[in-house]
Amino acid sequence: MYRPEIKVLDCTIRDGGLINEHLFEDKFVRAVYQAVSAAGVDYIELGYRASKKYFSADKFGKAKFCEEDFVRKVIEGVESKTKISTMVDIGRVEPEDIPLKKDSVVSLMRVACYVKDIDKAIDLVKHCADKGYETTVNIMAISTALMPDLEEALAQLSECPLKAVYIVDSYGALFSEQIHFLVAQYAKYLQPKGIEVGIHCHNNQQLGFANTIEAIRKGANFLDATIYGIGRTAGNCPLELLLSFLKNPKFKLDPILDIIEKEFVPLREKIEWGYMIPDMITGVLNQHPRAAIEMRAGKEKKSYADFYRGLLNDAELV
Amino acid sequence: MYRPEIKVLDCTIRDGGLINEHLFEDKFVRAVYQAVSAAGVDYIELGYRASKKYFSADKFGKAKFCEEDFVRKVIEGVESKTKISTMVDIGRVEPEDIPLKKDSVVSLMRVACYVKDIDKAIDLVKHCADKGYETTVNIMAISTALMPDLEEALAQLSECPLKAVYIVDSYGALFSEQIHFLVAQYAKYLQPKGIEVGIHCHNNQQLGFANTIEAIRKGANFLDATIYGIGRTAGNCPLELLLSFLKNPKFKLDPILDIIEKEFVPLREKIEWGYMIPDMITGVLNQHPRAAIEMRAGKEKKSYADFYRGLLNDAELV
Repeated sequence: MYRPEIKVLDCTIRDGGLINEHLFEDKFVRAVYQAVSAAGVDYIELGYRASKKYFSADKFGKAKFCEEDFVRKVIEGVESKTKISTMVDIGRVEPEDIPLKKDSVVSLMRVACYVKDIDKAIDLVKHCADKGYETTVNIMAISTALMPDLEEALAQLSECPLKAVYIVDSYGALFSEQIHFLVAQYAKYLQPKGIEVGIHCHNNQQLGFANTIEAIRKGANFLDATIYGIGRTAGNCPLELLLSFLKNPKFKLDPILDIIEKEFVPLREKIEWGYMIPDMITGVLNQHPRAAIEMRAGKEKKSYADFYRGLLNDAELV
Repeated sequence: MYRPEIKVLDCTIRDGGLINEHLFEDKFVRAVYQAVSAAGVDYIELGYRASKKYFSADKFGKAKFCEEDFVRKVIEGVESKTKISTMVDIGRVEPEDIPLKKDSVVSLMRVACYVKDIDKAIDLVKHCADKGYETTVNIMAISTALMPDLEEALAQLSECPLKAVYIVDSYGALFSEQIHFLVAQYAKYLQPKGIEVGIHCHNNQQLGFANTIEAIRKGANFLDATIYGIGRTAGNCPLELLLSFLKNPKFKLDPILDIIEKEFVPLREKIEWGYMIPDMITGVLNQHPRAAIEMRAGKEKKSYADFYRGLLNDAELV
């Protein structure tokens, strides 16, 4: 029997936009919204809600800011039960820029932070909840979090008005046993308060889908995925695989297959994501993909093996 | 602590050759042998030992036949502790064509079969063992095997002179819980007789590496992988990921990174393997990738979604 509590969140536009400064055409964003809606996915994240005080609208696409008129135009006239999410990063949003929920078509505000910034995240969560939104906290780079810090953070978060707290394997570094351990830790603090465990996996070691399944097996109910696995560097858990795996009959695979064929296969020829050796190496070494991105941009000419040895040597110097 | 019993077998040439009729240049095969040897991998499978009575040497490359002079030329002068394997398919080899082990540089004969052909496989195993070879049986399409048949086969195999019996997820259809179940079934029959459990995973659902890890966790000690995941359709568990995961210090990643950069990234531009939607669909539906291969060859023009619905409808007709 499937678990009706499971909610799938498509973050194609938000995470995919990290590859191209969110410079997607409006009609592309709308096509994604239509496909995700037709597939019966619970949430769609249409981008970040960054403030223009911090980022230039000349350089970044509309999904970087998710202003209300942009979001309304994307969804206008489309039949959909899919709720809208936007992500907010601490220090990149002016809280007063966020409208009241009653004036917005957005339902969910997801606050991304590192474990060290949990107090700032909680401030922002409370602000958004007070305005009427559903909220989550997405703890990034969880593979580098120290356990006492994480436990303290989870204890604090358990007292907050949250739908879910996410395990975010930003570096694509985790294996199944670590996923099992983290889901159990999260659940210990959060489930007694009715807060769900979420999972957001990157694919550096080709474990994005596998680790999402392992989190499901251990009780995670908020699941992130992207169409054709699009996302920064190695990309994410592919939505089409996740929907094939889930048994809830409300999910439909066909609309996702259609948009992959029409939009994502051609897009992959223009912008790069997926299994690539530099990004696999940063995953194996549990590091931020920064060095891999720079290497692929040709900023430093070196062989794969030299890149690997270089990162290993850097690690030894500490 | 790592398990010294773990043996890694690289089947790059054998499985990769299914994409291109084994039409690799000799120097490419030799470069793979050098890299795999330098990486400290335990076995390398240089191809099939098919008989020219059944396949034309005009159409297929030398790795389809693995005649003794070809294998000797590949390995000549290379410092290596890596043992040589070749695969034999029932009905595609004349047993009398196989030389005595004392006249061959090949150490391991792997007999591939479906569960229904286990008696024929056992005949061939005994023939090869009598000639002095190590032997394994690789049970293909295990995701479609019926459990009573499989248990009977395993009971028979447990009486044979075998190093290992493999779980072969030919369709890339299995999930972790099924891998756990199968490893336990195999181990129940085989481990009391000192026969190891082997694992060979395909990557249709991006679970090749993940399922290999799950098999390791449950006790499988013979592990198949290929460089850059090369292999028919979706490909295989990537050797570079497996070597990064294993803790035995005898394994070296650098030589594999080097050959990926020099040979496999360019090769991937010429021949196709990896995550592709038609092959993902056959994996999801637990079917042979035949239809996906035909679709990608353009034999039938249809959309991804029509391809999916077509296979679903075929299934409903039975």
